[in-house]
Amino acid sequence: MSEKTRLWGGRFAGDMNSLTSEYTAGADRELFELDIAASRAHARMLGATGIISESDATAIVDGLGLVLDDFRSGSVAWSLELEDIHTHVEARLREHIGEVSGRLHTGRSRNDQVATLGKLLVRDSCDSAAAGCDALIGTLVDLADKHAADPLPGYTHLQRAQPVTLGHHLLAYGEMLLRDRDRFWDCRARANVLPLGSGALAGSPYPLDREMVARELEFDAVSRNSIDATADRDFVAEYLAAAAITQVHLSRLAEEIVIWASAEFDFVELPDEFATGSSIMPQKKNADVAELARGRSGSVIGNLVSALTTLKGLPLAYNRDLQEDKKTVQETNSVLLPSLGVFSAMLPQLGFKTEIMRRSAAASFSLATDVADYLVGKGMTFREAHGVVGRIVKLCEERGCELSELPLEDYRAESDLFEEDVLEITTDTALAARDIPGGTAPSRVREAAAALRDQLAD
Amino acid sequence: MSEKTRLWGGRFAGDMNSLTSEYTAGADRELFELDIAASRAHARMLGATGIISESDATAIVDGLGLVLDDFRSGSVAWSLELEDIHTHVEARLREHIGEVSGRLHTGRSRNDQVATLGKLLVRDSCDSAAAGCDALIGTLVDLADKHAADPLPGYTHLQRAQPVTLGHHLLAYGEMLLRDRDRFWDCRARANVLPLGSGALAGSPYPLDREMVARELEFDAVSRNSIDATADRDFVAEYLAAAAITQVHLSRLAEEIVIWASAEFDFVELPDEFATGSSIMPQKKNADVAELARGRSGSVIGNLVSALTTLKGLPLAYNRDLQEDKKTVQETNSVLLPSLGVFSAMLPQLGFKTEIMRRSAAASFSLATDVADYLVGKGMTFREAHGVVGRIVKLCEERGCELSELPLEDYRAESDLFEEDVLEITTDTALAARDIPGGTAPSRVREAAAALRDQLAD
Amino acid sequence: MSEKTRLWGGRFAGDMNSLTSEYTAGADRELFELDIAASRAHARMLGATGIISESDATAIVDGLGLVLDDFRSGSVAWSLELEDIHTHVEARLREHIGEVSGRLHTGRSRNDQVATLGKLLVRDSCDSAAAGCDALIGTLVDLADKHAADPLPGYTHLQRAQPVTLGHHLLAYGEMLLRDRDRFWDCRARANVLPLGSGALAGSPYPLDREMVARELEFDAVSRNSIDATADRDFVAEYLAAAAITQVHLSRLAEEIVIWASAEFDFVELPDEFATGSSIMPQKKNADVAELARGRSGSVIGNLVSALTTLKGLPLAYNRDLQEDKKTVQETNSVLLPSLGVFSAMLPQLGFKTEIMRRSAAASFSLATDVADYLVGKGMTFREAHGVVGRIVKLCEERGCELSELPLEDYRAESDLFEEDVLEITTDTALAARDIPGGTAPSRVREAAAALRDQLAD
Amino acid sequence: MSEKTRLWGGRFAGDMNSLTSEYTAGADRELFELDIAASRAHARMLGATGIISESDATAIVDGLGLVLDDFRSGSVAWSLELEDIHTHVEARLREHIGEVSGRLHTGRSRNDQVATLGKLLVRDSCDSAAAGCDALIGTLVDLADKHAADPLPGYTHLQRAQPVTLGHHLLAYGEMLLRDRDRFWDCRARANVLPLGSGALAGSPYPLDREMVARELEFDAVSRNSIDATADRDFVAEYLAAAAITQVHLSRLAEEIVIWASAEFDFVELPDEFATGSSIMPQKKNADVAELARGRSGSVIGNLVSALTTLKGLPLAYNRDLQEDKKTVQETNSVLLPSLGVFSAMLPQLGFKTEIMRRSAAASFSLATDVADYLVGKGMTFREAHGVVGRIVKLCEERGCELSELPLEDYRAESDLFEEDVLEITTDTALAARDIPGGTAPSRVREAAAALRDQLAD
Repeated sequence: MSEKTRLWGGRFAGDMNSLTSEYTAGADRELFELDIAASRAHARMLGATGIISESDATAIVDGLGLVLDDFRSGSVAWSLELEDIHTHVEARLREHIGEVSGRLHTGRSRNDQVATLGKLLVRDSCDSAAAGCDALIGTLVDLADKHAADPLPGYTHLQRAQPVTLGHHLLAYGEMLLRDRDRFWDCRARANVLPLGSGALAGSPYPLDREMVARELEFDAVSRNSIDATADRDFVAEYLAAAAITQVHLSRLAEEIVIWASAEFDFVELPDEFATGSSIMPQKKNADVAELARGRSGSVIGNLVSALTTLKGLPLAYNRDLQEDKKTVQETNSVLLPSLGVFSAMLPQLGFKTEIMRRSAAASFSLATDVADYLVGKGMTFREAHGVVGRIVKLCEERGCELSELPLEDYRAESDLFEEDVLEITTDTALAARDIPGGTAPSRVREAAAALRDQLAD
Repeated sequence: MSEKTRLWGGRFAGDMNSLTSEYTAGADRELFELDIAASRAHARMLGATGIISESDATAIVDGLGLVLDDFRSGSVAWSLELEDIHTHVEARLREHIGEVSGRLHTGRSRNDQVATLGKLLVRDSCDSAAAGCDALIGTLVDLADKHAADPLPGYTHLQRAQPVTLGHHLLAYGEMLLRDRDRFWDCRARANVLPLGSGALAGSPYPLDREMVARELEFDAVSRNSIDATADRDFVAEYLAAAAITQVHLSRLAEEIVIWASAEFDFVELPDEFATGSSIMPQKKNADVAELARGRSGSVIGNLVSALTTLKGLPLAYNRDLQEDKKTVQETNSVLLPSLGVFSAMLPQLGFKTEIMRRSAAASFSLATDVADYLVGKGMTFREAHGVVGRIVKLCEERGCELSELPLEDYRAESDLFEEDVLEITTDTALAARDIPGGTAPSRVREAAAALRDQLAD
Repeated sequence: MSEKTRLWGGRFAGDMNSLTSEYTAGADRELFELDIAASRAHARMLGATGIISESDATAIVDGLGLVLDDFRSGSVAWSLELEDIHTHVEARLREHIGEVSGRLHTGRSRNDQVATLGKLLVRDSCDSAAAGCDALIGTLVDLADKHAADPLPGYTHLQRAQPVTLGHHLLAYGEMLLRDRDRFWDCRARANVLPLGSGALAGSPYPLDREMVARELEFDAVSRNSIDATADRDFVAEYLAAAAITQVHLSRLAEEIVIWASAEFDFVELPDEFATGSSIMPQKKNADVAELARGRSGSVIGNLVSALTTLKGLPLAYNRDLQEDKKTVQETNSVLLPSLGVFSAMLPQLGFKTEIMRRSAAASFSLATDVADYLVGKGMTFREAHGVVGRIVKLCEERGCELSELPLEDYRAESDLFEEDVLEITTDTALAARDIPGGTAPSRVREAAAALRDQLAD
Repeated sequence: MSEKTRLWGGRFAGDMNSLTSEYTAGADRELFELDIAASRAHARMLGATGIISESDATAIVDGLGLVLDDFRSGSVAWSLELEDIHTHVEARLREHIGEVSGRLHTGRSRNDQVATLGKLLVRDSCDSAAAGCDALIGTLVDLADKHAADPLPGYTHLQRAQPVTLGHHLLAYGEMLLRDRDRFWDCRARANVLPLGSGALAGSPYPLDREMVARELEFDAVSRNSIDATADRDFVAEYLAAAAITQVHLSRLAEEIVIWASAEFDFVELPDEFATGSSIMPQKKNADVAELARGRSGSVIGNLVSALTTLKGLPLAYNRDLQEDKKTVQETNSVLLPSLGVFSAMLPQLGFKTEIMRRSAAASFSLATDVADYLVGKGMTFREAHGVVGRIVKLCEERGCELSELPLEDYRAESDLFEEDVLEITTDTALAARDIPGGTAPSRVREAAAALRDQLAD
């Protein structure tokens, strides 16, 4: 690479080893839009403050427009020698406008430039991820409304526990995703502070108008410490953590879709367009999309570990280790954003087999707690009632019958508090009984869906 | 364990294998204060709503007071058979007040109880961690004020780059820790939602006054979905992520203390009370505290991975896997909180060798950028100036002199823009020149310290 | 702590801050057996080589025997001031034999001493883990023999795919655990190299007979580089990685037990002594042991991350960060070893419902591949046969029948290669047909079980 | 995608959603050499066993040769619709040889095919990584020979502790890398077992000659359980763990290079071709290559976490989650292999400043231990000697002198065992004195280098 293009060539006698060019190359080529936007804002400010002439500033801003067109049209060949996106932009700018391009770097360092690019990337990522959450919540809320009263066996430990409604179950994910969305918002707010103007680490001796640049790039504030601004990447780690939690939430929904699609559960029919088959077993229909969303949570957690481990033990200020920051964000985005999208598209197409769910919800003594509560309602302590119903369940198991099939006298043999109405406990009465905030009573589910919908971004 | 104490014994014919008791035992014995507080709030509400009689409620609340005294006085022997803190409390309560203790479990399940305990633990942890951050920021701000104008070589890539002030450098950590503090605040706000009243997973058929419980326990709201409330632990993962980022920040400060304490850097004298010696080398004085803070970041990151991996792929609702949640928080706290504390105590006692720092800051061509900026001030483009100064540095290296020792004619041989005043560039002028927001100019450092101090919690 | 006990007190004017004592304390108190064994071997060698007198050596060796008794009888109070196990042993030794105890430290440093303790711990851990694997493999092999011919639906994507035998399925875990066992063996072999004699980092000026110490402590060799021996902990990371893979294997078996125990699959009856119930739902019987084994894989992976992250970027030689090494091993052992043990105890007690498995294995078109293979046997390409059978499956789905219930003419409508014998394809013929190495034919399963049994350690 | 190309199309009415094609696409396009090799071996075996005709087998083998040429020449456009490398190969094969290509899939499933590809990839990766270790060890050994007697200050806690030789220090990394190499060998041996012939999960009903395929593909054995062979990926996790340990070792060497290159240590001059400069500070020369190797250890650890987390809790047999396995290997290789290469190339070009190292090695009381050993040689216990020398060091510090500059009478004031020869203790005598196995005496260093060289692969 010639001295013209390599930014720091002045003092180096030897040439850069080609191994070194390859080894030190970054993975930020897709970020040209963000980098050019930041450079244009910087150039305009340099002109407005008189640090460079207005005409030079205009030439640079216009030239960057041409460079942007070049990138958008795909006419910029990527060169390993030019190392990263910043150098590519700069080299191309020089081709368009010549020596004056050199003034763009006035009052700016690679270190505050890459930090700014990282902030812009994380900010965009937060917006995309939050929008993806909102869209998926919207899907879930719609489905929950539709299935607000459809019984589903509620499981704990994957054992049928108590009936819930399908809508209630789906809204559990809606609540998780709402917190996920809010985490991205919090991350965005914290990250949205402009590093540009921090120089290499110490700030700048030029009278930069940092507030002007912040306004143009829609940052909420300018950074208050130049070392921190160039050397920390906690905003990357925070984003990756928020993403990991979100993808882990999706992995749980994915696990459920896989389980529900099994022949044994048989709660959903996978839509053909979101399933795949087998090369050897003609009868198979697999929930590959769900499985990949589940499996790729590993990758998202891995990226978080990568970022934290990279930061661990680094002295201030900028070290080249930090170059890896954007890659972890981009790789995470390549999993998270399509995962949110594919679930939003797939869920409305899942064929929920509500009749099978209803039958399952009534089976396996799922109403035992309600029988215990019945006794409590008659004055027994819950502890005692729990024991009584435990023995009744055991009796049913021995007889091979469900609770509703046991004769009243067998109930009364365990406690004479039982009366005829114990046999009127059904899935629907059990659902309706849970009529407190957060409960699965259909009316509560509809309320919760409405409340969640209100919290979606417009 | 007898049926009396094991909560779910009614239906089980066989005895629990002792391997199983050991294997399933939790690690929450230290959480008795939180568990008892939650139980008392629940009991008061049961009485107030008439779900149990006022006299029963009073008996339970008073009995729980006695249990609390028992625990505080250390008179409760821990029994593996009693499995977890909840069973211990309940068993002891029964000893104090007899059968009426059974009514405490009315309208409550182990699942919403453990989730509530988790929330209380995370909330307390957030408070402690945020307070620890605030204390350390306070320490840093005080030191920064004191050293606002003391030069320190600023490093990038661990190469001397440009002078900064020691105060500016310390404030970089202050800014990081402020964001850390805010992350704990955000986490607290999001976590501070009451699960109690969610039952095992479906809500409760009792007319619980959840808002009353929330008020007594100082929760901001009640959960809106009972499945989500009992089955998710994202608040744990979020806390652990915030803790990991904080500990990684500390690992960086730790790394710097280790480097600064080396004979080669010699920037700090370790206080005896925060250093250790060698069993074999009598001359050694080691920054063990800093090293442990650095090394233990591994443990904090590991706990985060643990929590995320445990949650991955779990179907709803509660699964026993979740039992591990509190352990990860407690282990993280056992690293994070003392780390924050020990740094707060140690930093004011570090002997900063400001004269050595000042000498180092002036060496190694740290003012080269300022010389380049000098040329830019005379109209040269930065790119060109960078090349000129690169050659001058090379010349100095060959001669074994510093920039300020090079005769003016050698400067002028490279560019006739150089005049006498180039030799007036000093560390102090370089520092003072960086007089923009975020810059290292002493006045800016003092301003930033004041602004940071304003943001500390009272 | 007085200068007498703190090993490196000579030069320190100030006292150690109590925060520091707490912060730097290790977690190795349970390792006294290993530490004392290493010290006795060292002392014997010092005597044998004449570095100290025989009588001093004898006094030390005997004194260490008394210290060992003290620890075993529980009469050594742990003192935070005495920092770690080494200091506790040394202090107690001094109480027993006075000043001569000081000679034990001749030719030894804390750094090679802690590295030796780490090696002994990892070696023991490898032995325990390998034995745990062997025991569990033995259990699996016994069960596989018993169920070598019992059909189980084989799943891919949790969809019924093809019948396998329960024995074959269990042996899959046997094979995994055999590789796990071998990994522990490899780790042990690589770790079994004595660090003692490496001094603080540079070796020792005393004519130590390191081979003698190695023989007494049953190390295979002495380390060849003193810096490596005191500063690296790759053997810890390797052990933790082997443990993580093993626990992940267990997490998969655990997941299957949970799924199999669901009402929908209903493949196993959980033994009461390895299940737990619900505090609120009397009918529940939960696979908590399996769930905890699954969930705790997070902790084991977390410990691996912890160790790797702690090592990352540490300069040579010993740094205090390394103190955390033993804790990660101990915490991992506290999960891994009981997990192996509890599965060995639980599996033989699982009630496998082989009739239900057999019925499920025959359903859901699991024999579709065999029908396709039937066509291939008559000359059709597999690709074509796959398409034909795909259409037949679709037809069955529309009719709500299984493959064996479809009339021959419907088969022949798709291909006239079908003849009467296509209806003779059954689960048992499908199993028997897979009669190649690794296949699920019962005879192959018995062979594989025998081969696996042969590879168990005596 | 048409039914012709999508392998499992027969039964699906709807079309695949384009989101799904994108979401489920793999990242294995670079693995065509391995996939085609495996397919050719399978086809040859099908012919040799008469499962398909010899002429069909020949047509397929030759056709695969043409496909290989297509891939090598870059003439195969990658199509998202064709999903993965296997489908691309198959589609292209059909273009070359028509319908007969369909026979290639006889007795083979996608599941055993992808597992085989994974094994081949890991095997190749082990070979490459082991070769990279060997090369770097060779470099280190050569340098160690050259610097076997050059003093370097040995550090513990980054404090000068005792002199070692530069050669000894470098060999510490040689020993680490030798264990790393052996870990790759162990991993290779364990992974080198052929899955092909395991079918989808149950084995194959065709009389496959698996041993023949194993021989042709140079596998040591055939898998003994078809479920294990298709559903486990422990060999991936083991490889990634070995890689993570190796990269962590490199991160430590990298950290040292960064520290050594600092102005304060000044132990090495970075070669221009392996350093980079600053865009703003003309005087900078940064060890970017070392920093990236250090930082990228995060990525390698992250990939390990990714693989383990993905496997966690997966039921048998194959699930689509496993698709991510190859990506983690490839991404790890993209860091590990160039890291090993770039260090091998860079180390011989580092300018070691041995005179500065020698001076530093003699300073900071690094010989204090030797003075203590001197007293022990005269009969004092080490504990006592340690205290005496601690006080002498303190005296020197107060006087601002080194140990060798303190008058004999000051020594004798502390102990009359001191005689004139205490002043003859020098760096070189200290080095030479550590003449036991593993010690830093130059003769021992040369021996260790020779022994290490003997263990390199030819």
